[in-house]
Amino acid sequence: MKLATFEQDENGETNRVAFSDADIAGRQYVYDLMAEAGLMVSIDYAGNIIGTRSGRNQNLKPISFGSHIDMVPNGGNYDGCLGSLAAIEVIRTLEENKLITEHPLEVIIFSNEEGAILGSRAIAGVLTPDALKVKNITGYNNGEGIMRIGGDTTRLDEVIRPKGSIAAFLELHIEQGAILEEENLDIGVVEGIVGLNWWDVEITGFANHAGTTPMNKRQDALLAASFFIQAVNEVINSYEGGQVGTVGRIIAEPGAPNVIPGKVVLSLEIRDLSADKIKMLYKEIEKRAMEIQEKTKTTFKITPLDTTGKPALMDDMMKKKISSAATTLGLTYKNMPSGAGHDAQDMALIAPTGMIFVPSVGGISHSPKEFTSASDMANGANVLLHTILALDEEMAE
Amino acid sequence: MKLATFEQDENGETNRVAFSDADIAGRQYVYDLMAEAGLMVSIDYAGNIIGTRSGRNQNLKPISFGSHIDMVPNGGNYDGCLGSLAAIEVIRTLEENKLITEHPLEVIIFSNEEGAILGSRAIAGVLTPDALKVKNITGYNNGEGIMRIGGDTTRLDEVIRPKGSIAAFLELHIEQGAILEEENLDIGVVEGIVGLNWWDVEITGFANHAGTTPMNKRQDALLAASFFIQAVNEVINSYEGGQVGTVGRIIAEPGAPNVIPGKVVLSLEIRDLSADKIKMLYKEIEKRAMEIQEKTKTTFKITPLDTTGKPALMDDMMKKKISSAATTLGLTYKNMPSGAGHDAQDMALIAPTGMIFVPSVGGISHSPKEFTSASDMANGANVLLHTILALDEEMAE
Repeated sequence: MKLATFEQDENGETNRVAFSDADIAGRQYVYDLMAEAGLMVSIDYAGNIIGTRSGRNQNLKPISFGSHIDMVPNGGNYDGCLGSLAAIEVIRTLEENKLITEHPLEVIIFSNEEGAILGSRAIAGVLTPDALKVKNITGYNNGEGIMRIGGDTTRLDEVIRPKGSIAAFLELHIEQGAILEEENLDIGVVEGIVGLNWWDVEITGFANHAGTTPMNKRQDALLAASFFIQAVNEVINSYEGGQVGTVGRIIAEPGAPNVIPGKVVLSLEIRDLSADKIKMLYKEIEKRAMEIQEKTKTTFKITPLDTTGKPALMDDMMKKKISSAATTLGLTYKNMPSGAGHDAQDMALIAPTGMIFVPSVGGISHSPKEFTSASDMANGANVLLHTILALDEEMAE
Repeated sequence: MKLATFEQDENGETNRVAFSDADIAGRQYVYDLMAEAGLMVSIDYAGNIIGTRSGRNQNLKPISFGSHIDMVPNGGNYDGCLGSLAAIEVIRTLEENKLITEHPLEVIIFSNEEGAILGSRAIAGVLTPDALKVKNITGYNNGEGIMRIGGDTTRLDEVIRPKGSIAAFLELHIEQGAILEEENLDIGVVEGIVGLNWWDVEITGFANHAGTTPMNKRQDALLAASFFIQAVNEVINSYEGGQVGTVGRIIAEPGAPNVIPGKVVLSLEIRDLSADKIKMLYKEIEKRAMEIQEKTKTTFKITPLDTTGKPALMDDMMKKKISSAATTLGLTYKNMPSGAGHDAQDMALIAPTGMIFVPSVGGISHSPKEFTSASDMANGANVLLHTILALDEEMAE
């Protein structure tokens, strides 16, 4: 709740978009907390806040964990913040109990997760130069933003960690869905972060007078779009599994009640843990689009957009350690995919990675209404601590 | 083509929206043409240009005919202009042939047809005070516009013509559809101008994260909208007749590719010659909306908009006179509805009214691509002349 005070508007809602003054103030608060917890704190060239704690065996690679504190515009106080503050709480608990792990430990507060999964992509070595040019709502692009928060865009190469340089990575996060709450479970053991593909779908018909054009002479792009939206729904629902498909944006032109729409542009998004399944689902939707085109005398042009959301599978050993920790603590759990993207998806490129979910009330996220109870947050932090300790023991052998 | 020079843009396209400087210049040009043709010309308090020519029997009510010269933004040079200039050509032809009719004749160039069917509504006594407050693209509202073109909004009552004060009203117009062209016919005898009703349809679902919300937990307002758009199409197509139904405008919120649409607002328009049929079709669509609401876990709120487009049937005697004139001139014709609104629909409230259509190439209208051939325009003007002469003879008896 203290972190939530950076910064609050007149309604008591927190705004902390990456690179804003609020982000800089929040980062300073977290930086100080990390230092007070006994961590050696620094900011890397990508703007990630890194806190390290020595282990008994400095020859071992670090066990790393953390999340982010930046928010989407009009977002909530649990997404990212829980995993960040719980990571610090793990360090405090070890200090209080005078426990020294075999491995060095590392808390990472990643920069601009919401806008670009920026800090984790820099560490994983998959940040493209183009990504630095993308602005967020603050008006700063990622390159300017990195400089603002203490990084250095000319030295981003030095941030890259080679594969194998981190013993394991763990992220605790709110579920952002309603599955754990509905099934009355304490912990989600993330199986993987779904991949995501976007397409732009442009449907061309013929704009004409709605009064003088008989029904059988129309080339109505919006009618064609309505068939397409249903086809997406039907194709996605026709297979078992957790895949989702969404048409979230639609623009019909010219957009007057008395003119038949001549052109519609809409978005298509498909997510799944398997890139092959996404491809298969898309091919089927594309086939349906060709049939709709024929039936409605319109033309479909479907353009894949450049997306980087490849599926990221979590490590089997990590999943087992998380579920064991939950069981040891008397908590219920289930294995589940993550429908949203996280820093863990890029960390999985360079380290065995695991993610722990706790329930989101009503499944609401990216909203000031986002909420997770204190006891659920404590459960998640305990699972994080016990997973780290179990990993430390097993991986040191 | 001379009228089309008021005013042309750099692409040679004419813009003459009501109340613009171009409208004022075009009106002056037409006013002068009317005076040169021998008409007594004046402007009434609603801004209509009225040209009168005495008949042999001044006890008879006038036979009136005309159309409008204002255009939609980015419109064409035939809609309204044909009927206006052909009316003047009828007077010229009578002058050249030294023909005096029994009835007085009256050419009316109506003000702001495209924006408000303004001048004809004033004459028919159905102009509401609210209509005067409506602005068009020029920035002037109808009240200001009337003052600009030589009318007087404080004296609009004096413009009203009582029912029976006009012997007959005729309007020649381009079809604005493709039926005459496709059936290779010369003349359309308008049976009536379809009525038109508009509704606002608001569909409320629940906006949520497209990645973390499983398909079976969604309340997708855009999916519901797609079912609705198809239902409109199916209901309209399930009956014989010329009715049309259109969803031309759609807005989905929040409108991001990765968020399930929580709210959709769309327009529904139904047109038919029968107000009862429109009502029946709407009731069926409303029933389908209730089923879709159930199936998609969304809420439909359908609000009728205040529209004045009641169906206007043309006079049987007028239809017969027009088809006889066509036959006499060796022209082919068919009876057909008008899907678009016209000044004739309001004139039908106070006088026996008829409308003559000529083919529109490709059915294109309200576009710079609007085109009607010179021979088709001449055919229409001839039918107009011969109908007036036949009416004059029959109605004077």
